[in-house]
Amino acid sequence: MKTDNLRIDLDRLLGRLDDLATVGAIDGGGVCRLALSDEDKAGRDKVRGWMTDLGLAVTVDGIGNVVGLRPGQEDGPPVMIGSHIDTVATGGRYDGNLGVLAGLEVVAVLNDAGMTTRRPIAVAFFTNEEGARFHPDMMGSGVHQGDLSLETALAADGIDGATVGAELARIGYAGDAPVGAVTPHCFLELHVEQGPVLEEEGITIGAVTGVQGISWTEYRFTGVSNHAGTTPMGMRNDAGYVAAAVAMEARSIARDMGGNQVATVGTIELGPGLVNVIANEARVTVDLRNTDDKALMAAEERMAAFVTGTAGAEGVGMESRSLARFAPVDFDPAMIDLVAGTATALGHSVKRMPSGAGHDAQMFAPNCPTAMVFVPSKDGISHNVAEYTAPEDLRAGADVLLQAALSKAGEA
Amino acid sequence: MKTDNLRIDLDRLLGRLDDLATVGAIDGGGVCRLALSDEDKAGRDKVRGWMTDLGLAVTVDGIGNVVGLRPGQEDGPPVMIGSHIDTVATGGRYDGNLGVLAGLEVVAVLNDAGMTTRRPIAVAFFTNEEGARFHPDMMGSGVHQGDLSLETALAADGIDGATVGAELARIGYAGDAPVGAVTPHCFLELHVEQGPVLEEEGITIGAVTGVQGISWTEYRFTGVSNHAGTTPMGMRNDAGYVAAAVAMEARSIARDMGGNQVATVGTIELGPGLVNVIANEARVTVDLRNTDDKALMAAEERMAAFVTGTAGAEGVGMESRSLARFAPVDFDPAMIDLVAGTATALGHSVKRMPSGAGHDAQMFAPNCPTAMVFVPSKDGISHNVAEYTAPEDLRAGADVLLQAALSKAGEA
Repeated sequence: MKTDNLRIDLDRLLGRLDDLATVGAIDGGGVCRLALSDEDKAGRDKVRGWMTDLGLAVTVDGIGNVVGLRPGQEDGPPVMIGSHIDTVATGGRYDGNLGVLAGLEVVAVLNDAGMTTRRPIAVAFFTNEEGARFHPDMMGSGVHQGDLSLETALAADGIDGATVGAELARIGYAGDAPVGAVTPHCFLELHVEQGPVLEEEGITIGAVTGVQGISWTEYRFTGVSNHAGTTPMGMRNDAGYVAAAVAMEARSIARDMGGNQVATVGTIELGPGLVNVIANEARVTVDLRNTDDKALMAAEERMAAFVTGTAGAEGVGMESRSLARFAPVDFDPAMIDLVAGTATALGHSVKRMPSGAGHDAQMFAPNCPTAMVFVPSKDGISHNVAEYTAPEDLRAGADVLLQAALSKAGEA
Repeated sequence: MKTDNLRIDLDRLLGRLDDLATVGAIDGGGVCRLALSDEDKAGRDKVRGWMTDLGLAVTVDGIGNVVGLRPGQEDGPPVMIGSHIDTVATGGRYDGNLGVLAGLEVVAVLNDAGMTTRRPIAVAFFTNEEGARFHPDMMGSGVHQGDLSLETALAADGIDGATVGAELARIGYAGDAPVGAVTPHCFLELHVEQGPVLEEEGITIGAVTGVQGISWTEYRFTGVSNHAGTTPMGMRNDAGYVAAAVAMEARSIARDMGGNQVATVGTIELGPGLVNVIANEARVTVDLRNTDDKALMAAEERMAAFVTGTAGAEGVGMESRSLARFAPVDFDPAMIDLVAGTATALGHSVKRMPSGAGHDAQMFAPNCPTAMVFVPSKDGISHNVAEYTAPEDLRAGADVLLQAALSKAGEA
């Protein structure tokens, strides 16, 4: 069975992307489909309908993950293609959706060709990848792969007070398929890069080598609120100063460590927040990422020591708590080679690169051969209505996904 | 006429302080009497009533300043004692009120002694010293001394959309006395220090040498909102980083310049304000103060150059605007000597010191001999319900005010 010449239908893929983007559409071309909301239900119904139309056998598991299975010539673990269709509140139309709809496109191409692969192919979308409404993110894939217990996930509270379990039942996606029952032969995810590297370097395909480890820490500082004019500099306990110093140190850590170490302070809040009052309260968050867990730990330790020293010197109280911690994930070398080689064979430029963002694929990586395909994001923008990937790049990424999946589905 | 042995009645002064603090009382022992609010009206009515009870001839001018006049043996410009009774939203019971009620205590002592001073004595409270509801602060004293036009002041919008003119009319304090009609012989103001210096050094009386110049600048930075994980450090335009750098530079400026240069960043606001999103918006305010206007200008210039350079290097857009600018004010040397000498003669420790905060007195300083008396603030706290000055310090300050005023009122 020769499949090398099979290609996705760009118009059909764009049509489904456009159609799904009408569900929860917001101004500017973006989408708001927070996990387990009415909009998410409507999006789920639409994609599940497409799965059924394509002849897939659809199951919904206890955390609301939806899996459509296309049988192979042989039984056994399927080649799984998956991502998510939930979005952040001001999301774009590509993030997550592309990976799921490109998976459907793989199925459609095979249907059109009348071909049955040796191994089954599964297309899946996982609940609450974004974590925008419920904590933690990558919830559905985490439960699917045993990283998170179903009970914990169902009990998670949302930012609006709702719980995952109640919302799943409300929208009719508390399914009866057991979680973790399907351990795939391998896992593939196509996703927009959500960063500027591919566009900046003029490269079409990213062969993702793994996912950066992520460390989020919140610091709260307690100083003394005093008059900006009457309090000598040497008698200050300025919580805002310490918060600002943390932001500067984050930049210094990234600069000094180099490599792919990144450090971001996206939140600084001062209280009382007045021009002429020394801040007695400050809250600051630090986001540290590295592909090397030892390096990430070194960054964490340097920041912790800096904070302790700086708060102490300023006479400011300090509390810290970890908001999130994911160890770096390495994808399977053979799978990375497959993605890179497939891209090259199809005539596309390719770069091996880590992912700076978390993805469902990382939950599969410890348990089965896993890799991801990145396509460029215009201006590196994501989680924003301005998110955009050019149609030709979508085509290239979906074709790499198709050929990589067919290669794996033909394996003995 | 011998007046050296006259002393204020502490219980009477404390009684009026306690009584006035019931108007607009808030939890923790503080007061909320925002300028021209219903609470301010109630406070005004109470103090005006006390003025009348003490036999003062009360006038209200076009900006709502209330002046009570005690005639002297001779006509002519009075020795004026004044301050304010409006408060910030979470104000204490001493700030402003002390200076006004100690002025009434001076009158009461003279009434009890049956004495008439050579010059008249006036006790005044001025509208909207705090600037917490209407901009600018020191409004009433500014209009009184011609620093601000009555028309501009009446048109000022409040944080709640009300205007000064309408609110004055509403509460019945749009008076008919002409503004600026009374140019005093001299001006004296007793006030809590609102800073920690006197307490820290164990000194009872501050002989205030002048008021620090104040420079408030707001900076707004516009960067690019991008993913904290996927955006390499070298491709960032991080508005939050620049804001944090401004806060650090403020500290450096104060440290490098020394003397009484102070620098405060009390406000840092980032947008969108998420852990994992590089800030595309930041707002930061800088409060610089110095008693030397040339030094203050040097501090302003250094900050402006730093901001321009840092925003430029980060590729972040920058806008700045001045929120306030008062040149330093020097009080009259002979008046400062009078305050210091009176304190010493009364057996109190005294320190000559600048005021880090703005006060009504500074509006009088260019036009008549002016000085201020400071008493310690516990823990340097002010603009806070925890504001506190010990009764014995109140007594000391009020006695210095009394004796200094009597000295001036006896002058030919």
